[in-house]
Amino acid sequence: MKLITAVIKPIRLESICSELEKAGFSGVTATEVQGRGAQGGRTEYYRGQEFSVKFRTKIRLELLVAESDLERALDLIVSTAKTGEDGEIGDGKVWVSSLEQIIRVRTGETGEAAI
Amino acid sequence: MKLITAVIKPIRLESICSELEKAGFSGVTATEVQGRGAQGGRTEYYRGQEFSVKFRTKIRLELLVAESDLERALDLIVSTAKTGEDGEIGDGKVWVSSLEQIIRVRTGETGEAAI
Amino acid sequence: MKLITAVIKPIRLESICSELEKAGFSGVTATEVQGRGAQGGRTEYYRGQEFSVKFRTKIRLELLVAESDLERALDLIVSTAKTGEDGEIGDGKVWVSSLEQIIRVRTGETGEAAI
Ligand SMILES: Nc1ncnc2c1ncn2[C@@H]1O[C@H](COP(=O)(O)OP(=O)(O)OP(=O)(O)O)[C@@H](O)[C@H]1O
Ligand SMILES: Nc1ncnc2c1ncn2[C@@H]1O[C@H](COP(=O)(O)OP(=O)(O)OP(=O)(O)O)[C@@H](O)[C@H]1O
Ligand SMILES: Nc1ncnc2c1ncn2[C@@H]1O[C@H](COP(=O)(O)OP(=O)(O)OP(=O)(O)O)[C@@H](O)[C@H]1O
Ligand SMILES: [Mg+2]
Ligand SMILES: [Mg+2]
Ligand SMILES: [Mg+2]
Repeated sequence: MKLITAVIKPIRLESICSELEKAGFSGVTATEVQGRGAQGGRTEYYRGQEFSVKFRTKIRLELLVAESDLERALDLIVSTAKTGEDGEIGDGKVWVSSLEQIIRVRTGETGEAAI
Repeated sequence: MKLITAVIKPIRLESICSELEKAGFSGVTATEVQGRGAQGGRTEYYRGQEFSVKFRTKIRLELLVAESDLERALDLIVSTAKTGEDGEIGDGKVWVSSLEQIIRVRTGETGEAAI
Repeated sequence: MKLITAVIKPIRLESICSELEKAGFSGVTATEVQGRGAQGGRTEYYRGQEFSVKFRTKIRLELLVAESDLERALDLIVSTAKTGEDGEIGDGKVWVSSLEQIIRVRTGETGEAAI
């Protein structure tokens, strides 16, 4: 059992979730976060005033998946998270960790049956 | 050292946290999230208007525990997260991962002593 | 590849992020959370009224790092998260888990190259 975490652009949230659902990945948890990527803080100018832009609002998605579904879910998330033709800076970062246990509260089911 | 993550109904937050504290699990981190479970998006009707309900507000709890406390903490969370007699749809999902290190900032303590 | 999660005092967010950036750790994800530590719930009095203080607003930072950068990033976070001379109660908790995969959405890069 794996946990996929994806930090994406808010504008892609609806597409990603609808693609996930069509592919059978109905469960998902979304959190509003503030993120900074490889470009780090930038200095911008507004009406002659200098100010630093450090964070941008992103959505952090979590997706519990069976190991056998991992690659399919990752491909779908990465391809749908992209904006523009070749992707743009800030389009997102995705990471995968391993889980030892999953439980569905209502039924007490555990393991892949609880996903 | 384990990390328990539980996505629960907001209405159960207070009970769960007070039960955890009584059982000696005082430390906890809570985040407001938007979640969708196995039922996925549903179409609902309100005054003749169709609209799709995709996400519901949930609370994501994180709990660092020693391995020896894992089962006790899980049992407590799962039983207290249930609503109604036999639980209801949307009552929650719980998952467990393994941690390599924990540090208490103030003292620099590490490992189980830092939980 | 490792994931560092640090729950810190909001007042230390700017210092920590600027120190991280100076040290070459430009990428970071921040979430506003509610936290309770080892001291648990306390009862406080305000104008004769008793009320319990359970949670405090904290910032949950996530940082993806290469294994070779782990200790340096941890030292920096722990030392900068401290308030006052010797640290204060509530200064923070930091934990580390292992990651199986990281992907940069724009380029499709994976592994440490995607951090
Ligand atoms: N090293 C990191 N640690 C934690 N979070 C990160 C890291 N890198 C990126 N993120 C999160 O992912 C979001 C999207 O990152 P982003 O797409 O900008 O990655 P990037 O490596 O800068 O790639 P690009 O060059 O395409 O912008 C960030 O806003 C941040 O929330
Ligand atoms: N596969 C999943 N991946 C990520 N988050 C999930 C997943 N399944 C559920 N969640 C999170 O847990 C919350 C509660 O899930 P829920 O209790 O509805 O699970 P379920 O499997 O649909 O069980 P039930 O049939 O009892 O509703 C969701 O709102 C979502 O935030
Ligand atoms: N066991 C835990 N599980 C999950 N989150 C925790 C745990 N302990 C602490 N946290 C999170 O970290 C935040 C900071 O914790 P805090 O610094 O108070 O830790 P502590 O162990 O109580 O140390 P101190 O005695 O220095 O206060 C908490 O508000 C909470 O969000
Ligand atoms: Mg970037
Ligand atoms: Mg459900
Ligand atoms: Mg404390």
